[in-house]
Amino acid sequence: MFLEACRRRPVPYTPVWIMRQAGRYLPEYRELRAKVDFVALTRSAELAAEATLQPLRRYPLDAAILFSDIMTPLQGMGVGLEFDPGPVVREPIRTAAQVDALPRLAPQRDVPFVLDAIRLVRAGAPRGVPLIGFAGAPFTLLCYLVCGRPSKEFSAARALLYAQPETAERLLDRLADAMTAYLAAQAAAGAQALMLFESWAGLLGIREYRRFALRGVRRVVAGLRPLGVPLIYYVNQGSALMEAVSELDVDVVGVDWRSPLGAARRVLGPGKAVQGNLDPAALFAERGELKRHIEVVLDEAGPLPGHIFNLGHGIWPDTDPDAVARMIDYVHERTARRPLA
Amino acid sequence: MFLEACRRRPVPYTPVWIMRQAGRYLPEYRELRAKVDFVALTRSAELAAEATLQPLRRYPLDAAILFSDIMTPLQGMGVGLEFDPGPVVREPIRTAAQVDALPRLAPQRDVPFVLDAIRLVRAGAPRGVPLIGFAGAPFTLLCYLVCGRPSKEFSAARALLYAQPETAERLLDRLADAMTAYLAAQAAAGAQALMLFESWAGLLGIREYRRFALRGVRRVVAGLRPLGVPLIYYVNQGSALMEAVSELDVDVVGVDWRSPLGAARRVLGPGKAVQGNLDPAALFAERGELKRHIEVVLDEAGPLPGHIFNLGHGIWPDTDPDAVARMIDYVHERTARRPLA
Repeated sequence: MFLEACRRRPVPYTPVWIMRQAGRYLPEYRELRAKVDFVALTRSAELAAEATLQPLRRYPLDAAILFSDIMTPLQGMGVGLEFDPGPVVREPIRTAAQVDALPRLAPQRDVPFVLDAIRLVRAGAPRGVPLIGFAGAPFTLLCYLVCGRPSKEFSAARALLYAQPETAERLLDRLADAMTAYLAAQAAAGAQALMLFESWAGLLGIREYRRFALRGVRRVVAGLRPLGVPLIYYVNQGSALMEAVSELDVDVVGVDWRSPLGAARRVLGPGKAVQGNLDPAALFAERGELKRHIEVVLDEAGPLPGHIFNLGHGIWPDTDPDAVARMIDYVHERTARRPLA
Repeated sequence: MFLEACRRRPVPYTPVWIMRQAGRYLPEYRELRAKVDFVALTRSAELAAEATLQPLRRYPLDAAILFSDIMTPLQGMGVGLEFDPGPVVREPIRTAAQVDALPRLAPQRDVPFVLDAIRLVRAGAPRGVPLIGFAGAPFTLLCYLVCGRPSKEFSAARALLYAQPETAERLLDRLADAMTAYLAAQAAAGAQALMLFESWAGLLGIREYRRFALRGVRRVVAGLRPLGVPLIYYVNQGSALMEAVSELDVDVVGVDWRSPLGAARRVLGPGKAVQGNLDPAALFAERGELKRHIEVVLDEAGPLPGHIFNLGHGIWPDTDPDAVARMIDYVHERTARRPLA
């Protein structure tokens, strides 16, 4: 169902999943985390699989997404980092020599627990609920590697693009190759769709986006396309970038809550499905209002096939799990009543 | 010159000023701050005037902007807050009762030092360099008041818009009235243009932007329009919001670095000047590259009058002051060679 929607085929109702659905808004996840810290959770195949499966037991979700972190493969490559709670890189990368010294990723050797978690989820997930594997998009990973820690401006990363553009390009190519290997290994282990998260696209004007971020994604997509697995690219704060995004050979574009789906579909064209984009804050509205906000998203998505309902960004930790249940039910109910396209 | 450009009249060259031009990238400002903390600096008319004048001594800037903080008038109204280094509000506002209890602002009583600073700057500024007064836009102030401290998501503020929309509207109206009084007092003290900073517009989709942020700005603009002073509205991350912004009766729209000026001008129409929008990171490029990035901005702005050159966001503390000098000179030189429109 979800996979059919990725390919823009007609489906009986609009599929739903939630970015960060395996996370802190769930009491059962908080219970898991009370026993083990975040990094240990990402590095244990059994526990990561358990966290992935938790929301599927509670809700009629149409897809699972692997519980992991975009920094996990970099940690596997030997980049020293902690979580505090965002990732903190011990030795930020600022020179061409550091880029060249970055080890390559061998997923089976460096992150076997991720691949094992995928196998466990595939064995334990409800029938018909496919598993999405994921990675950070190269530019987003560059932001963390160059700055060392999350920041509002990511100024060191942005300055690098202007001051040492060739070094930035070389780092992006390295990261693209690592993420290609990482995602291909996830698909081989059983992930049925692959998603790239471009969390920091909104830091760039379209020229820099094309030169740097798009270069990285294009390289990953070229490497993965032969696998025949649906590819999803989430581009946060992408409203001014959709024209460039439309050039990518991906199946689905994930759209943030500030970019109206209708406008996104017009720019992306009929060859791409869209995913999104309810404001995570809308889950704090009272019941009737929440329905109204969901309808706005469904109306913007339009009657054509190729819409996957989601939030426009990760769900917030203080969200009421009952509001999530109401949202999922309402999307299913409301779209099942529509005539099929 | 700057004021003529605000009114879209032909000028001999494109005027330049810099958001946060009185700030930490200047050694003379850091020297001032070594002697006195940030809040004390904003509350001393003499020192705030000195910080305002520092960049004018160093560069041929075409406008001064008052050294102050968008939280200063709220502090004057009795809102308890510290800077750490961003503003931290002691008792975040979350209820209608708290909104109603918010005192009104009487600028002469509550922030006399701001008005005195304006008088001192007017007396000390080079001839022909006008002074811009400013305030935070109501929604941006709401973000700080509701969340208590700056955050990536400003989730408490965004949740309030959905959970208690009427309370949010009431708070916006209160803040709009306070900022109207504040800016009118700045104009009476000598400020020759007035600017509203909407730093957090990028948190909102266009529906919420219209209902909340635009409501607040509209109310301030209606109050100030009779003064006959040019009004500037800076909207950060505004690329998806320009259609709504075009409805505002302001003279100039300040555009962030991710929103191409050409597209902004097309949506805003011929009745508004634009201000911006070099990426602050571009000042880290080598000389020839910096020129190329400046030319892109000038080309996007087009040959019509009504462009004020600026960065697309505040200048970064680690910027080289010499790069700033080169930028200002190049804009002046490059636009003086153009035929007048």
